[in-house]
Amino acid sequence: MTQITCLHPTYLLPIEPDTTVLLKHSLVMEDEKIIAILPESEARKIYPTANHINLDKHALLPGFINLHAHSAMSLLRGLADDLALMEWLNEHIWPAEKKHVNDEFVFDGTVYAMAEMIRGGTTTVNDMYFHNDAVARAGIHSGMRTIVGCSVLEFPTGYAQNADEYLAKGIAAKSEFEHQQGIYFRLAPHAPYTVADETFRKIIALSEQHEMGIHCHIHETAQEITDSLKQYGVRPLKRLHNLGLLSNKLIAAHMVHANDEEIVTLAQTGVHIAHNPASNLKLASGFAPIHAMQMAGVNVGIGTDGAASNNKLDLLGDLRMAALLAKAQSNNPTALGAHAALKMATLNGAKALGLDKEIGSLIPGKFADLIAIDLSDIETQPLFDPVSQIVYAASRDQISHVWVHGQCLMFNRGLTRLDQEELLNKAHWWQQRISDQTPQ
Amino acid sequence: MTQITCLHPTYLLPIEPDTTVLLKHSLVMEDEKIIAILPESEARKIYPTANHINLDKHALLPGFINLHAHSAMSLLRGLADDLALMEWLNEHIWPAEKKHVNDEFVFDGTVYAMAEMIRGGTTTVNDMYFHNDAVARAGIHSGMRTIVGCSVLEFPTGYAQNADEYLAKGIAAKSEFEHQQGIYFRLAPHAPYTVADETFRKIIALSEQHEMGIHCHIHETAQEITDSLKQYGVRPLKRLHNLGLLSNKLIAAHMVHANDEEIVTLAQTGVHIAHNPASNLKLASGFAPIHAMQMAGVNVGIGTDGAASNNKLDLLGDLRMAALLAKAQSNNPTALGAHAALKMATLNGAKALGLDKEIGSLIPGKFADLIAIDLSDIETQPLFDPVSQIVYAASRDQISHVWVHGQCLMFNRGLTRLDQEELLNKAHWWQQRISDQTPQ
Repeated sequence: MTQITCLHPTYLLPIEPDTTVLLKHSLVMEDEKIIAILPESEARKIYPTANHINLDKHALLPGFINLHAHSAMSLLRGLADDLALMEWLNEHIWPAEKKHVNDEFVFDGTVYAMAEMIRGGTTTVNDMYFHNDAVARAGIHSGMRTIVGCSVLEFPTGYAQNADEYLAKGIAAKSEFEHQQGIYFRLAPHAPYTVADETFRKIIALSEQHEMGIHCHIHETAQEITDSLKQYGVRPLKRLHNLGLLSNKLIAAHMVHANDEEIVTLAQTGVHIAHNPASNLKLASGFAPIHAMQMAGVNVGIGTDGAASNNKLDLLGDLRMAALLAKAQSNNPTALGAHAALKMATLNGAKALGLDKEIGSLIPGKFADLIAIDLSDIETQPLFDPVSQIVYAASRDQISHVWVHGQCLMFNRGLTRLDQEELLNKAHWWQQRISDQTPQ
Repeated sequence: MTQITCLHPTYLLPIEPDTTVLLKHSLVMEDEKIIAILPESEARKIYPTANHINLDKHALLPGFINLHAHSAMSLLRGLADDLALMEWLNEHIWPAEKKHVNDEFVFDGTVYAMAEMIRGGTTTVNDMYFHNDAVARAGIHSGMRTIVGCSVLEFPTGYAQNADEYLAKGIAAKSEFEHQQGIYFRLAPHAPYTVADETFRKIIALSEQHEMGIHCHIHETAQEITDSLKQYGVRPLKRLHNLGLLSNKLIAAHMVHANDEEIVTLAQTGVHIAHNPASNLKLASGFAPIHAMQMAGVNVGIGTDGAASNNKLDLLGDLRMAALLAKAQSNNPTALGAHAALKMATLNGAKALGLDKEIGSLIPGKFADLIAIDLSDIETQPLFDPVSQIVYAASRDQISHVWVHGQCLMFNRGLTRLDQEELLNKAHWWQQRISDQTPQ
């Protein structure tokens, strides 16, 4: 038997068509799908026996898509901050990961991160980490739409010994879980400086064979470019272009450093960008030329990166930061306006994942991945423009309801599927364990 | 009869000495003053009959000092965004101000902004607006420590006709309210491009005569500098230096554009900077060289600017943004660490205001301007470092308690002195009025 639910928000922001704001309109979902958007009076007349939910202080919009995350690192947040990248990695993050990262850590840490993301209105995460099966199980457990990025490196970790083993484990995880609703897989070569040409070639072949997208850190730091010029004689993006990696199946995370020619290349090849504004600042990576990329026609979405380098998994905060930074970086106060920022965090992310037929906007036929934001707080009144209030004034604690695939994961700020007390107990257990063993 | 209160937080962050974190320590206040900080067991033994408040999920620290605000503009938030500065001012903000700004607007808007600031842990605001007496009354009404910046311009507004009238009204307001606890006055020449040399000379004389500090927008935009070079043949800071304005009585708001020589001048003259990270991005003003200023010995505090150009009055969010921006701007991930960011939002602000003997740190003898932050949420667990969690991971809704001058203004997220429903009713009344009359 199907379940019909009608949501009656004050403002309905479908994201498509651009800049639309519907007043007194309702969204109707049947099981996992949106089946209609229509005036509230009609919805109440046509669906009298449906489950009606009044959201009369709220805006309803598509859930946020976190386009770049290392979710399990939520358990390492604040372990080390304000350090240069190599000291941070060598003396803190890598030793902690070496000691603790196993299936259990990745499952617990990923579920924990998903709880924070759900509380902040994120409904889809494009993850990149190890222990792919644990990430997939975490997605199933939490109910979040999850893209499991199967990391590939040349060097060994506790998960695999070499690139071939990482690849084999990724393909195996995909085979095991690909029938699961809401779980998707991507090949995730870590970065140009940790993956050899030969491995990139294998990844391209496997990507075609298994119809998998690719997710890779590219041009995160200036150092990466200098090193590539020394080692390969070309900048990393050029090297990847020569190898045939650049296409609309690729999500390039960061792309902080892109010159005019490279922006044209990105646009021509259809590469998608996962912009990580907070992490790029915190690690002093730089200011990504997002406005120039968008003007050139490059598709840009937003990611949080891991909690050890942000340290929030707060898409609403990060889309505001992206909107503010784009203006100063381009010396143009009209750059990346409020509507465009919301689109970046929703439909652009869906497009980057090849899921824009399924999610990213409120269109009948798409999956019901939805969030409601309560705009009645002092911080968002008086209200002249709901989109401005959401992007520039609201905080993530105003996100009140979250649905993924038609299933309610948060209702009036209460998690409905995950158990908050159990999550905190797990977090405390891991804190004890990590504090006891990590050299400080 | 005196009232003794003991607060028992898990973490006590006194800010002085630098980077101190006290565990299982308590703060004792007698009426408006901090009288002791000591181990919890001793506090319970010495003060058995005091009012004991357990804060066992919390960090206790000095309240935030908002070093640059136009509070009353909270009623205009989101009226116009994503516009070039002159279009924003000429077509939206100035017409709305011309129609609506009067005593009532300024009182209501300032109280409303103070409610948001209190909910976000701000205990002192360095304001700059018109209708000085209304701002002072708002401070008395809300209980916030308030520095009333008496704006001075050459051109007329609804408040005054010329510079002399603005000055006379400022001095009159000071005389009327200076006996009021927690209300202070500053002369606030708007900016070098709106105030003539002759008026600056009068301001310097009045500042000495009435022992008033000065608060002025300086070097907010590159355009301001270009225009000054044309009109005066020197950059604005040089012109103000020639006039004798630069001293430790001056707070320069913004200072986005400062070259190496100017940074030395700022350090040598003791000028304090009110850094406004969010507003500087939103209006595309640029990236202030905060790390370089601090390295040169310049005292830098943090401000929100007005809600029409931020659009949050969220010091916790803005100190995080300042910390992140400083790293990317200086290409140094160790710049403006978490402890330094907290100090910037507290003790540095107090120093800029000449109030560092009274507020800005938790030291016996200082006024009890305090906030507690609940760190037990999912977003700030596991917890390896409370200061990292506060600066990089917490959100303003985790601020649970606020005291100003020993008086509790928020307890467990509930405003105790202001009436939230009344505030929202006022906001809706103003929304109606402004929407009816402002050309959109």
